[in-house]
Amino acid sequence: MTAGQSVSPAQGAAGDRSNRQLAWAYLSRVVLGPCPALTALIESVGVVEAARAVRERELPQVLQAPTAARRAEDRAARDMEIIGGLGGRLVTPDDPEWPAWRMLGLSQLPPGRDPDGAVPLVFWVRGTRDLTELTERALAVVGARCSTGYGDRAAGTLAGDLAARGWTIVSGAAFGIDGMAHRAALAVGGATIAVLACGVDRPYPAQHDRLLDRIAETGLVVSEYPPGTTARKHHFLARNRLIAALSDGVLVVEAGMRSGARNTVKWARRIGRPAMAVPGSVESAASAGCHRMVRDGEAVLVSSVEEVLADAAPLHLPSAGAAEPPAVHQLTAAQSSLYAALPATGGRWPHELCAPTGLAIAEVRAGLAALDMVGLAGSAGSGWFRLRSGPRTPGV
Amino acid sequence: MTAGQSVSPAQGAAGDRSNRQLAWAYLSRVVLGPCPALTALIESVGVVEAARAVRERELPQVLQAPTAARRAEDRAARDMEIIGGLGGRLVTPDDPEWPAWRMLGLSQLPPGRDPDGAVPLVFWVRGTRDLTELTERALAVVGARCSTGYGDRAAGTLAGDLAARGWTIVSGAAFGIDGMAHRAALAVGGATIAVLACGVDRPYPAQHDRLLDRIAETGLVVSEYPPGTTARKHHFLARNRLIAALSDGVLVVEAGMRSGARNTVKWARRIGRPAMAVPGSVESAASAGCHRMVRDGEAVLVSSVEEVLADAAPLHLPSAGAAEPPAVHQLTAAQSSLYAALPATGGRWPHELCAPTGLAIAEVRAGLAALDMVGLAGSAGSGWFRLRSGPRTPGV
Repeated sequence: MTAGQSVSPAQGAAGDRSNRQLAWAYLSRVVLGPCPALTALIESVGVVEAARAVRERELPQVLQAPTAARRAEDRAARDMEIIGGLGGRLVTPDDPEWPAWRMLGLSQLPPGRDPDGAVPLVFWVRGTRDLTELTERALAVVGARCSTGYGDRAAGTLAGDLAARGWTIVSGAAFGIDGMAHRAALAVGGATIAVLACGVDRPYPAQHDRLLDRIAETGLVVSEYPPGTTARKHHFLARNRLIAALSDGVLVVEAGMRSGARNTVKWARRIGRPAMAVPGSVESAASAGCHRMVRDGEAVLVSSVEEVLADAAPLHLPSAGAAEPPAVHQLTAAQSSLYAALPATGGRWPHELCAPTGLAIAEVRAGLAALDMVGLAGSAGSGWFRLRSGPRTPGV
Repeated sequence: MTAGQSVSPAQGAAGDRSNRQLAWAYLSRVVLGPCPALTALIESVGVVEAARAVRERELPQVLQAPTAARRAEDRAARDMEIIGGLGGRLVTPDDPEWPAWRMLGLSQLPPGRDPDGAVPLVFWVRGTRDLTELTERALAVVGARCSTGYGDRAAGTLAGDLAARGWTIVSGAAFGIDGMAHRAALAVGGATIAVLACGVDRPYPAQHDRLLDRIAETGLVVSEYPPGTTARKHHFLARNRLIAALSDGVLVVEAGMRSGARNTVKWARRIGRPAMAVPGSVESAASAGCHRMVRDGEAVLVSSVEEVLADAAPLHLPSAGAAEPPAVHQLTAAQSSLYAALPATGGRWPHELCAPTGLAIAEVRAGLAALDMVGLAGSAGSGWFRLRSGPRTPGV
C-alpha cells in the first residue's frame, strides 16, 4: 500500500493512522522542508487527500512547482521502516506529541515573506523521549564551529549548569560550541536535543556519530527532513529556525562575524524568543559576532546562568487583579479557568498552570494556543501571561 | 594684600585681575570642591565681594555651614605661588580658557540633588596647554586599578589609536587602566589630561610621580582642589564628574563590580555623554562591571576605535533645510549665523563652525552656550545641532 490510497473502514483506526503516517512521510519527501502551501492544503482537505492530490497533480498552481521534482518518488513505507529501525518515529501534527505550542511563533510569521520560516510539515525523530515534554523547558546553546578553549569552557559551564537545573539543551550537533553544549548536558545526566539539517539516519558531522547515538539514548535527534536527506546549505538556515522554535531562548557562546549562530538569533527574534550572547576578548575573532549582536541590540549580554534564566525564564508570580476574561469572547470552561490563572504581568509555565486549573498539561497547551489565537494570552520567553483584547470597556 | 580687600582704581586692570584670582583661590580652599550656593553668590555679587562676604560672615544661612571650617584660612597668595612654581595657573570662569561649554552639562543638572555634581569653582592646572582647546576633542578612558594584561593591552591599543587620531585622552592617573591610557597617549605623541582628586602638586598615586610630570609637559594635570589638598574618598567621586564633563564620551576598559569607573559612567549618563564599555572574558572579575553596564543599558559595548568614534563622535554633515531661527528669539548677528550653520540632524564640532560663520572659536563657544540656554541648540556626544523651540508656527 502507498500513501494516498484509500482504505476501507474495516481496516479500522490503526490502519487509518498508518495510512495518514504514510501520507505525511510521502509528502515530507516530496517537499523536503517547510511548504506553507502544502500545509494549507493538508489543513483544508486532510493529509491523505492532500497526498493523493499531489500524486495525481490535482493541485493549485502554487503547489505545482514545489511538488514537481519528487511527486513520483514514494518511499514512505521504506522511510517508516528506516526510522523504526533507528528506534525512532515520525511525529506529525496528528500526534499528541506534536509540539503545537512551540510552533506558534513560526505559524504567526507573515506568510510568503520567507517560506523557510514556516511550520515544519513533520518531525523525524530518533530517541524515546516525548518531543513536547522534552521541550517544556528548553534553551538553545549554539555557536562557532571554530570555537576557542574559552568558548568551549563557557559553553560547557553554561550548558552543564542549565541541564543540571532541568533545562533541555537544544543545539545543532556541529563541531565547536554545539558539540560542547550537547556533551555538557549529557555529562550531568541532563536532556539534550540535536536538530539536524539532514536525515536523522545520517550523522552530521560524521565525526559526531557516537555523540548523536548518545544524544538519542537519553534525549532526541530530530529533523524535518526524511531519512537519507543530505545537508544542503539552505537546510542549515531552515534548521536554525527549529532550534529557536523548540527553545525558550537562544544563547550564543561564540560566533564569528559570519557565524550561522547569528542566523539562529535572527529567527529567535522573529518568533519572539530572547536572544543572548556571551562576551569575550575583543582580540578574539570568535567573539566578534557576539559583540556585534550585543552592540546592535540583537542579543542581550549574559555572563552567567543566572542572567540566562533572568532573560529566558522570568519566573514572576502572578499578580493580583481582575481575572475575568472580556465578555466579548466565547470561551470554554477550561479556557476561562486558564485565563483566570494567567498573570497579568510576568509569566507562567504551562506546567505551572496544571495545578491552579486542574487541567492536564495537554489541555493547558491547547487552551493557551486557543487563548493566543483570540489575543487573550501571550508569551514572552517561556512565560505566558494574560492579555485583554476586544473593545475597550469603560474603566478597563 | 589678601583676597577680598579692596583695591584702588589706580592699581589698574592687572591688579584687578590679581585681586580676583586671589579671591577665587581663597574661596577654592574655603569650600574644597563644588559649592552651588557659593557659585550663585559669586554670579550675583562678583568674586571679590563674595570673598569679602565669606570672610566677614555676611552670608545667607545656606552658606554658613559650608564656609565655617576654613573661612579664616587665607593661603591664596601662597597657593598662587605654589601653582606658579609648578609652571601652572589657576583657571577661573573669568578666564577665556575656562571650558564653559564643557561645563554646560553639569550646570544643567537639577540643583540640590547632588551638590557634588555642580560646576567646579575653579581649575588648578599644571601644564602649558589651553584647557578649552585641549578638550575640544577629548575622550575619557578609565577603568580598573587591578587591570589584567588583557585590559592593559586593550586600553593601550584604544587610547593610543584615539590619541594618534588627535583625540585628547582624559583619565584619572590611577594604577591600571588609567595609567595605561595616559601612557599610550604619551607614547604616540598625543595629548592627555589627568584629572586628580587631590592638589596638582601632590602626585597621586605617588608611584605615578614621573608619569604626572610627563603628562604636564605635553598635556595637563588638573584639579578643582587647591595645592596641598589630600585625596579623600568623596573627592574621587566628585572628580569623576570632571573626567566625564571634560570629554566627549567615557570608555571603560575593565571594571570590577564595584569599580569607580561605573561612577564615572553614571556622571557621563547624567550629563549626556555617551558611555562605552569593552567586553572581556566572563571568567575575569575585571570585566564583570563592564558586562553589567552593557547588560543594564548603562554603556554601549565597543570593540574597536571605529565603534568608539561612531558612538562618541557622530561626524554627520549638516543637512539642508530651513536655517532661520524662530522669530520669537532675539539673537545677536553672531548667534543667528551660528544657528544657520548648525545641522538640523547629526552634529558639528565647535571648530567646524568657525569657517562657515566667520567667528572665532571663543565666539562659537559663547554663541553655542547662548543658543543652548534658550533651547535653540543641543549637543549629543560632541556634535552640536539646531533645535526649534518657542511657540510652534503653522507649517513648521
